[in-house]
Amino acid sequence: MTLEKTSSAVCHGGTQDVYAHRSDVLGCDMNVAVFSPPQVETRPLPVLYWLSGLTCTEQNFITKAGAQRFAAELGLVIVAPDTSPRGDDVPDDAAYDLGQGAGFYVDATRAPWSRHYRMYDYVVNELPGLIEAGFAVTDARGIFGHSMGGHGALTIALKNPGRYRSVSAFAPIVGPSTVPWGEKAFAAYLGDDREAWKAYDACELVADAEERLPLLIDQGTADGFLDEQLQPHRLEAACAAAGHPLELRMQAGYDHSYYFISTFIGDHVAHHARALCG
Amino acid sequence: MTLEKTSSAVCHGGTQDVYAHRSDVLGCDMNVAVFSPPQVETRPLPVLYWLSGLTCTEQNFITKAGAQRFAAELGLVIVAPDTSPRGDDVPDDAAYDLGQGAGFYVDATRAPWSRHYRMYDYVVNELPGLIEAGFAVTDARGIFGHSMGGHGALTIALKNPGRYRSVSAFAPIVGPSTVPWGEKAFAAYLGDDREAWKAYDACELVADAEERLPLLIDQGTADGFLDEQLQPHRLEAACAAAGHPLELRMQAGYDHSYYFISTFIGDHVAHHARALCG
Repeated sequence: MTLEKTSSAVCHGGTQDVYAHRSDVLGCDMNVAVFSPPQVETRPLPVLYWLSGLTCTEQNFITKAGAQRFAAELGLVIVAPDTSPRGDDVPDDAAYDLGQGAGFYVDATRAPWSRHYRMYDYVVNELPGLIEAGFAVTDARGIFGHSMGGHGALTIALKNPGRYRSVSAFAPIVGPSTVPWGEKAFAAYLGDDREAWKAYDACELVADAEERLPLLIDQGTADGFLDEQLQPHRLEAACAAAGHPLELRMQAGYDHSYYFISTFIGDHVAHHARALCG
Repeated sequence: MTLEKTSSAVCHGGTQDVYAHRSDVLGCDMNVAVFSPPQVETRPLPVLYWLSGLTCTEQNFITKAGAQRFAAELGLVIVAPDTSPRGDDVPDDAAYDLGQGAGFYVDATRAPWSRHYRMYDYVVNELPGLIEAGFAVTDARGIFGHSMGGHGALTIALKNPGRYRSVSAFAPIVGPSTVPWGEKAFAAYLGDDREAWKAYDACELVADAEERLPLLIDQGTADGFLDEQLQPHRLEAACAAAGHPLELRMQAGYDHSYYFISTFIGDHVAHHARALCG
């Protein structure tokens, strides 16, 4: 289980690489993007994990978000995996919001998905294991993401107290159990028992979180998915009820695109750096 | 001849829009990207034109370069046109370096190209006319570009003294008359008379430039096209012979990609702002 570098480009004094590797957890070959800032030459660095949204691969974030500028300034490695298992042997669906490109960062329990769709285990365990064995990094970890990946970042941080020092999200799905994207995916991957869905729902998890890790969320007010799929006020209410720290920034006029992400990416990288580079 | 907005996203407090319009010069419908920074609400702004490289459309620069952050800080409109005429009625070639996506910023004189392939006239005259009629902008203009678009920026600035206040390029084709990309395109678009090619060759134009507009060029040393297609030392020699001011920065390890462009885009936008926002 080794990482094979498939592309490399110097960027902001560091290197933006993509690696291919076999995933035992997912049962397929995967691509993962790794940005190494210039400081990696002199000391072990913290790692910030980025989880992308529906339809994305490991490429979208590294070509569009502009995070490398800030990671290079602040001395963070950024790791951006793909959004699902991939390949001809991996079950898929014609829809953009189920199957390949739509792993939802859960461990599927239902056929035909349960063999390969184990993105939760991959992101929490297998991938950090590979990164921490293969690169000069510390075990200081942050996690952030966009939309489906914002859901992934919030739920993974909330479910693993002590494992991440910082978390943030752009336009996350905060309550997948009760919105169309999540209902469709969770029914397929987890079955019809809605109780089982709560284990992957930030609005549910925040009530019983063992660790009160502060959440930073940016959400555009002109996001076309805001009312039906995202509903950040529900997480705001859940955090208020639980006493969980949340900074929810409603950004006037911004949509769901990488134009929105690129505008605020520097704030998010700095948020993580404050926790990770102390 | 009006501009129809086909997409719009808030970005860095401004708006990244794309417009469709009929081009009389090119005889086809065209797309053009326009970033308007927040300062456009309060005063007319200078315009910085970006010319993209082979295979690009108006999308590549606006999604990957990260220029909006700096244009928003400094108060510049950035206009990014497509790289050629487009459409089913427009001649094309199966190769990536001729026909659609490869206009080379010349006015073609040979069939079948001469009817539509008039990117020089479009960029110098028709497009600025549209922009200056349709937006709250001044007639202060800068121009920059990448690769084939770097060639376009350099030659257009050198051929039009007084029309641009600033010019820069990333990894430009500096002497198209004598490298494979340019020889192929110029033979098709301009015919076999190599004397005619010199009118679109920066290494030739710099000798007789009426205006000594300083040239800023960044070039990656790991650029796979450096030795065969780009050859910046030839422009360096021509500028030295002519007494033309040139800052050629050889950037160690960088390739030809937008990872390279995004690293130095802030320097270039600042270079133009110094000339345009005085």
